[in-house]
Amino acid sequence: MTYCLGIINRAGLVLAADSRTNAGVDHISTYRKLFDFSNPGERVIIACTSGNLSLTQGAIAQFKRDLQDPEAANLHNLPTMYEVSRYIGEKIRVLQESDGPWLKKDKIDFKCSFLLGGQIRGEEPQLYLIYSQGNGIQAMPETPFLQIGETKYGKPILDRTLTFDTPLDAVAKCALLSIDSTMKSNISVGPPINVVMYHANSFAIRHKLQLRLGDPYLAKVRMQWQESLRQAFNSVPDLEWEQTDDAEEIIID
Amino acid sequence: MTYCLGIINRAGLVLAADSRTNAGVDHISTYRKLFDFSNPGERVIIACTSGNLSLTQGAIAQFKRDLQDPEAANLHNLPTMYEVSRYIGEKIRVLQESDGPWLKKDKIDFKCSFLLGGQIRGEEPQLYLIYSQGNGIQAMPETPFLQIGETKYGKPILDRTLTFDTPLDAVAKCALLSIDSTMKSNISVGPPINVVMYHANSFAIRHKLQLRLGDPYLAKVRMQWQESLRQAFNSVPDLEWEQTDDAEEIIID
Repeated sequence: MTYCLGIINRAGLVLAADSRTNAGVDHISTYRKLFDFSNPGERVIIACTSGNLSLTQGAIAQFKRDLQDPEAANLHNLPTMYEVSRYIGEKIRVLQESDGPWLKKDKIDFKCSFLLGGQIRGEEPQLYLIYSQGNGIQAMPETPFLQIGETKYGKPILDRTLTFDTPLDAVAKCALLSIDSTMKSNISVGPPINVVMYHANSFAIRHKLQLRLGDPYLAKVRMQWQESLRQAFNSVPDLEWEQTDDAEEIIID
Repeated sequence: MTYCLGIINRAGLVLAADSRTNAGVDHISTYRKLFDFSNPGERVIIACTSGNLSLTQGAIAQFKRDLQDPEAANLHNLPTMYEVSRYIGEKIRVLQESDGPWLKKDKIDFKCSFLLGGQIRGEEPQLYLIYSQGNGIQAMPETPFLQIGETKYGKPILDRTLTFDTPLDAVAKCALLSIDSTMKSNISVGPPINVVMYHANSFAIRHKLQLRLGDPYLAKVRMQWQESLRQAFNSVPDLEWEQTDDAEEIIID
């Protein structure tokens, strides 16, 4: 499995991804799932991937090939982020068409999804989720994050802490804690964790970070979060139980 | 969907359940999913249910019918908790056999699972999860909780706060916060929340609680938890970004 998330707000964008892949418990590996295709000064393009590795790697390979071809539509010449999202969907569809039937025959799951975040000069920063079928959705201020892969464990902290006005450094911390919560509860998500932070209208990624297993900063954050969470937990009052009479114990008659 | 959890430790047991059922977004209802079949003084038997409602209600109806029949094996005369767990599995299998083929024809999901917690005089308190196939597993000190239904959102808080030695009042609070986190992140889990707490070797449920939508205690706990979580979040240091040179922005070549 995988866990990637993108968060967009007034100040910019944060994207983050783990690096674990697995095909059953016997095939656990480490692969990068966060890719930077920016053209600094003109556009920032970050993609995160989840799902069948041969499919996502195939799509990434196509993106790179098209970048070498001045005739081809590619991540550096498409005029809008929406068109970039459609381009990614189109590449997924081509691979689905060529390889899908072969994998289907052996009942191999051939799904994938992409997060796309960035900004092209002349537009606002944007964040998209592109599905396995090639269609996509865009994040909006009311729900400023999108997730792919193993999304559930890390959602409560996003729901409780994020708004469209959260400062970008806090957004990045939130993304890291969301991935860390997922890693603690699910063995299919694991380090290194890659995080990038993008300030709107800067057209360059100036903040990136890779946290490996055993990284002292990751250990510090994890310990501090664990401790603060315990304190938060202790500060919540105990339950106020109903008065019960032993003779009336049976809730159900 | 549904979310139920059971936690067992040195001091006793806590079981908790939400009350929302849904069959698509058009059929959302409220049904109790936590049932007390205790025989105070001799045994405590708590069951929580998840999955196809006709299946779980059918099983509960069977439990009740057997309790009226002095010849039948039932929840009050089976000698061990293990045998109670097998009995529940057997009832599920009978229903699967009679109704399963009819639902399968229309591709209706006919799965369910049960949590069973309690203590029979002469035994230690025990906690089981019984699967749709009728087999089951028992919680052990290394992992003192079992969950059924929509389990992922509420797992991080259990992973971070529970041990086999956590005081029982803190265990109950943890169960409530686990359900509350799930309710906030997933619309298919909802109030009222039922919680029971059982002190080992007391052979009676003296602590139970039902929290309805808008309950002032639930609102207070939720607000306090939200606030404490924010403080915990703020106390974690911001990310220490790598030094990046604009000319080396591209993570991938």
